[in-house]
Amino acid sequence: MRLSRYFLPVLKETPAEAQIVSHRYMLRAGMIKQASAGIYSWLPLGFRVLRKIENIVHEEQIRAGHIPMLMPTLQSADLWRESGRYDDYGEEMLRITDRHDRDMLYGPTNEELITDIFRSHVSSYRDLPLTLYHIQWKFRDEIRPRFGVMRGREFLMKDGYNFDLTKEDALHAYNRHLVSYLRTYERMGLQAIPMRADSGPIGGDDTHEFLVLADTGESEVFYDSQITELKFGDREIDYDDRAQCQAVLEEFTSRYARTDETHDEAVFNQIPEDRRRVARGIEVGQIFYFGTKYSEPMGATVQGPDGKAVPVHMGSHGIGVSRLVGAIIEASHDERGIIWPEGVTPFHVGLVNLKTGDAEADAACEAIYAALVGKGLEPLYDDTDERAGGKFATMDLIGLPWRITVGPRGLKNGVVELTSRRTGESEEMSPEAAVERVAQIYAPHMVRGI
Amino acid sequence: MRLSRYFLPVLKETPAEAQIVSHRYMLRAGMIKQASAGIYSWLPLGFRVLRKIENIVHEEQIRAGHIPMLMPTLQSADLWRESGRYDDYGEEMLRITDRHDRDMLYGPTNEELITDIFRSHVSSYRDLPLTLYHIQWKFRDEIRPRFGVMRGREFLMKDGYNFDLTKEDALHAYNRHLVSYLRTYERMGLQAIPMRADSGPIGGDDTHEFLVLADTGESEVFYDSQITELKFGDREIDYDDRAQCQAVLEEFTSRYARTDETHDEAVFNQIPEDRRRVARGIEVGQIFYFGTKYSEPMGATVQGPDGKAVPVHMGSHGIGVSRLVGAIIEASHDERGIIWPEGVTPFHVGLVNLKTGDAEADAACEAIYAALVGKGLEPLYDDTDERAGGKFATMDLIGLPWRITVGPRGLKNGVVELTSRRTGESEEMSPEAAVERVAQIYAPHMVRGI
Repeated sequence: MRLSRYFLPVLKETPAEAQIVSHRYMLRAGMIKQASAGIYSWLPLGFRVLRKIENIVHEEQIRAGHIPMLMPTLQSADLWRESGRYDDYGEEMLRITDRHDRDMLYGPTNEELITDIFRSHVSSYRDLPLTLYHIQWKFRDEIRPRFGVMRGREFLMKDGYNFDLTKEDALHAYNRHLVSYLRTYERMGLQAIPMRADSGPIGGDDTHEFLVLADTGESEVFYDSQITELKFGDREIDYDDRAQCQAVLEEFTSRYARTDETHDEAVFNQIPEDRRRVARGIEVGQIFYFGTKYSEPMGATVQGPDGKAVPVHMGSHGIGVSRLVGAIIEASHDERGIIWPEGVTPFHVGLVNLKTGDAEADAACEAIYAALVGKGLEPLYDDTDERAGGKFATMDLIGLPWRITVGPRGLKNGVVELTSRRTGESEEMSPEAAVERVAQIYAPHMVRGI
Repeated sequence: MRLSRYFLPVLKETPAEAQIVSHRYMLRAGMIKQASAGIYSWLPLGFRVLRKIENIVHEEQIRAGHIPMLMPTLQSADLWRESGRYDDYGEEMLRITDRHDRDMLYGPTNEELITDIFRSHVSSYRDLPLTLYHIQWKFRDEIRPRFGVMRGREFLMKDGYNFDLTKEDALHAYNRHLVSYLRTYERMGLQAIPMRADSGPIGGDDTHEFLVLADTGESEVFYDSQITELKFGDREIDYDDRAQCQAVLEEFTSRYARTDETHDEAVFNQIPEDRRRVARGIEVGQIFYFGTKYSEPMGATVQGPDGKAVPVHMGSHGIGVSRLVGAIIEASHDERGIIWPEGVTPFHVGLVNLKTGDAEADAACEAIYAALVGKGLEPLYDDTDERAGGKFATMDLIGLPWRITVGPRGLKNGVVELTSRRTGESEEMSPEAAVERVAQIYAPHMVRGI
């Protein structure tokens, strides 16, 4: 993309309404614009990050054997009356009346709708196990929306639902989700720690929240510092292998890590004092096993091997897709702007022409641009006539992890500069070498999407 | 995908509520399930087609130089009061009141919101031309939703908006959209004819609707039969070349083609009688030039080269993404089911194992499956123990354009069968040759997505 033809409305001033760094930088970098309280338009740069995150989630869910579909945003109130949640849900549910005076709602979650789909189409244990998921906009009518996309009202969420014959099968689905979430967050450059949590309005027995440590987190968290040393890495997982999935769960959840809702001071104090940590965290996902809480009242049963109808065991599993954009910035920025992890950066590399209009510099930039695109990379080429300082400031603000700087002086010696946004370190090399290096850096981070 | 692990709830019975063929087949093929009146869940097979169409639209919009972003589904009523449309829009607008008693609405279109974004961030003619678009769910509270996704209430639409300094520039944007739409529909295997139309509640001077000819179309259309011989084909277009875009517009709009809203019997009768056609059509897109209709009341101005503030010239341009799924089926099916065009098929090829459990047949299918996946293709492998007739009926119903059939008898001679869904013709060949042939067929139809 050439900046001269893009829409990147960066702001010089810090908007007064933004209280936390991710909100400030998302506004300043031209990623979002508030449409109304807690509701945002995703401007082109923001949309690119959102789409990358969405695609990573899709890839990892499909890898785990989960099946993508799409449920609508608006739901009939009838199903929610059946589960008993219509009255329970309170004012955060946005209730709507259509022109025929039918009660509708903007879905805050989809347990009822997916259970209805299941009971309409599945009747035998032979069709299990089954995990369906979607990535769709949700609405929660927060009384005080704030922190930009971190606590918005309209938000994008991945929610998945498993249907299993037995509790044991459903717990394997739970473990599968935990493993796939660990992979998902790491691909986004995040360490998200699974913590024992409270089940809230979803209900259920087992639940873990995934939290990213950040000073601006809404939850107080308590953990054993050993847990932050765990890495999922590039280990191969067979998602059908129960023992393997269970082992990952044990590895990542056997150390103390809880939110304030489930914190137990006595247990915490058994950890050696130098490993006890109290911090704040941002919730970016949650997994639940809730057994037959929805299948029983809604009649979602299958015929088991013995011919008897039994309610299925279910769980639901969410990832806050739009919230992740903010969470990643909270976890990765400095005083000059955002620092995107390679997995989610809106563009792979910024290309800065120090002297737009200089024939040699222009030609070199065009050649580098074409070579990057030819390798399947997405460069953002600043081909404007802004001065060099302004170009650097914009690139730093929008946080592309790598920058290639091209100027007449370097070109005389046959070199350009490759700079890491994270470390600030620069290295001179030939244009070809710079392209090759960037391609190598991104080889493990390419997102295919669906 | 292996069918044994997929969720494909095909129905044997024709659902009573479905009046048109696309609705019937979408229900029977397990593509959709009604959630409430005019609101559908997209089951896995339907979601795959929807996503393919969405990705083709993205690819072609980006090729034309238009910039993707994403606006929210819910909007504040305030902006619609500013444009004067809040009261005009009538009961099709779903009006919502939030917990703070603020008037909101579920966006049926986005002229107001995009104009607000524009006026907040753009102030100089140097930032023009600019075309922003998004693909987002919309809501129109149809009094009698029917025909499945063809006239639903919650529907997915691509809507794009151009901002230009002059009327001439805006008309080039109009032409660019017309050209990109021709390419878009042809990639989906559709002939969509641009017809002069009425501008309706969007307003404006110039507008064309794109219509797919089908007996179930909601509009009566009148056209010169010569127009159906036009093909966009694989011509290269430079979207910056005004003369080239204008020439395409003239080629595709100079012959008579109008909906009943703009039909002129006297002009129609000047066409030689044997070329006059009266038929029905499904609207799958519309482009508008409406000048300063929104920019003037909403104050979307830029400083021109002479330093004076002028309202920008705008247009809006829509493609009915979810409706296209139905329109394609209306245009391409037979008595056994859907026949997907290669560009949008949910899976590229069906792989039918005639004797699941037979070691040789199983091994051959596994090898073919792996070879197809290795070439980046998406096969649907029916590895269930259903009898052959049932497997064929399902494949015909869901409409994959190509099928590879593997059985013990053929394997003795080293062959499998490759069958075209459209013609019904089969050809025997080695498994390797079948894989190679399928890869060749799909080479021009691969969708990359964003």
